[in-house]
Amino acid sequence: MASGRFYLFCMVLGSLGSLCILFTTYWMQYWRGGFAWDGSVHMFNWHPVLMVSGMVVLYGAASLVYRLPMSWVGPKLPWKVLHAALHLLAFTFTVVGLVAVFQFHNDSKITHLYSLHSWLGIITVIFFACQWSLGFAIFLLPWAPQWLRSLLKPVHVCFGACILSLSITSVISGINEKLIFVLKNGTKPYSSLPSEAVFANSTGILVVAFGLLVLYVLLASPWKRPDPGALTDRQPLLHDRE
Amino acid sequence: MASGRFYLFCMVLGSLGSLCILFTTYWMQYWRGGFAWDGSVHMFNWHPVLMVSGMVVLYGAASLVYRLPMSWVGPKLPWKVLHAALHLLAFTFTVVGLVAVFQFHNDSKITHLYSLHSWLGIITVIFFACQWSLGFAIFLLPWAPQWLRSLLKPVHVCFGACILSLSITSVISGINEKLIFVLKNGTKPYSSLPSEAVFANSTGILVVAFGLLVLYVLLASPWKRPDPGALTDRQPLLHDRE
Repeated sequence: MASGRFYLFCMVLGSLGSLCILFTTYWMQYWRGGFAWDGSVHMFNWHPVLMVSGMVVLYGAASLVYRLPMSWVGPKLPWKVLHAALHLLAFTFTVVGLVAVFQFHNDSKITHLYSLHSWLGIITVIFFACQWSLGFAIFLLPWAPQWLRSLLKPVHVCFGACILSLSITSVISGINEKLIFVLKNGTKPYSSLPSEAVFANSTGILVVAFGLLVLYVLLASPWKRPDPGALTDRQPLLHDRE
Repeated sequence: MASGRFYLFCMVLGSLGSLCILFTTYWMQYWRGGFAWDGSVHMFNWHPVLMVSGMVVLYGAASLVYRLPMSWVGPKLPWKVLHAALHLLAFTFTVVGLVAVFQFHNDSKITHLYSLHSWLGIITVIFFACQWSLGFAIFLLPWAPQWLRSLLKPVHVCFGACILSLSITSVISGINEKLIFVLKNGTKPYSSLPSEAVFANSTGILVVAFGLLVLYVLLASPWKRPDPGALTDRQPLLHDRE
């Protein structure tokens, strides 16, 4: 029953996450001229799509791997590999998204990293890189002792949630900034709420809704792997601990 | 020992929170012409100061009342009253902060609630009002049954953390938006990172650091009131439950 509710929740999350990506892509395609990889503003358009897809939707999905009831039985290693692999994919999207904006800034002679959005965004990506590397070294490689894993697990979960929270903040400030930059001095300023503004604002609200639901499942929901006791990571075909 | 670490953490949080308020006030005073209550841009300047003070710093402090080790012994009611009163004070700051920006928009003929920052900010304040009212009715008034309190407590804590997370997002997008609006077309555009931009960006980073530390203490730290078992709220001078 609890498992049924979880999969219902997963469907809601999956739909919300897909909508976030679709809305961002449609915004860039319909109102901002579409995509290219040529240093122009059309190259910049990959930036919001890749950041929402990587730092929010894929990151959120990767965070919830251990909340899947099917991951609670049997060996944990395959789920650890999936968790790390999905996060690595999210990080790859993020890096390509950064290349898109840096290349655009280079070609358009725009200063790098001046806005609060960019400061926070780059801090988030650096935190993500540290979190992934430390997680890989401590939880996936077999050499860290059990006491160290147990000590660091709540820190890993909390820091992961903080990074998602920072991602959402970066995305919201980024959408707001983009709308201020492009909807000015025209016949349809941002303050007159043209259809692009309503659509992009709604995209931001969708991103927030998705992120908050992920944080709820991650931090406060009852869907957690039951504590299997004192078994160790090296016992094949049994639950492992942290 | 754990208690000692908690108070050290409190000192760090108190210093960070004070710095957030001081930095925002200094930004408005030194670079944006100071404060007034006359519908001008100087009235707007109260908006960031009151939102950072109310929705972030006071809200954060109010959230952590039950994490104080001294609150873990004796009756819980005085701490509930303190928790509700501090949040009410935070809400009052927030409402005055909203009055400041609405009045400024009215007098300057600027559209209300068009930016993503404003959409998210107003949603956050509505969530805060709902959270406070429900919390008051369920946890402070004596009529709600114990099973309802136990059921709603994790939802109350999680939703409270979500509201703080939304507040931080609103503040960051607000600082970013303000800097784009005021540092344009001049000899010192935002992209040249004049001293005001560095200072206000740093203020944003301080707000994020404060908020994340509060969320850590609230959601993941070991500082929690021990579960006292099956005692009820109506047993004077004993621990009460939820």
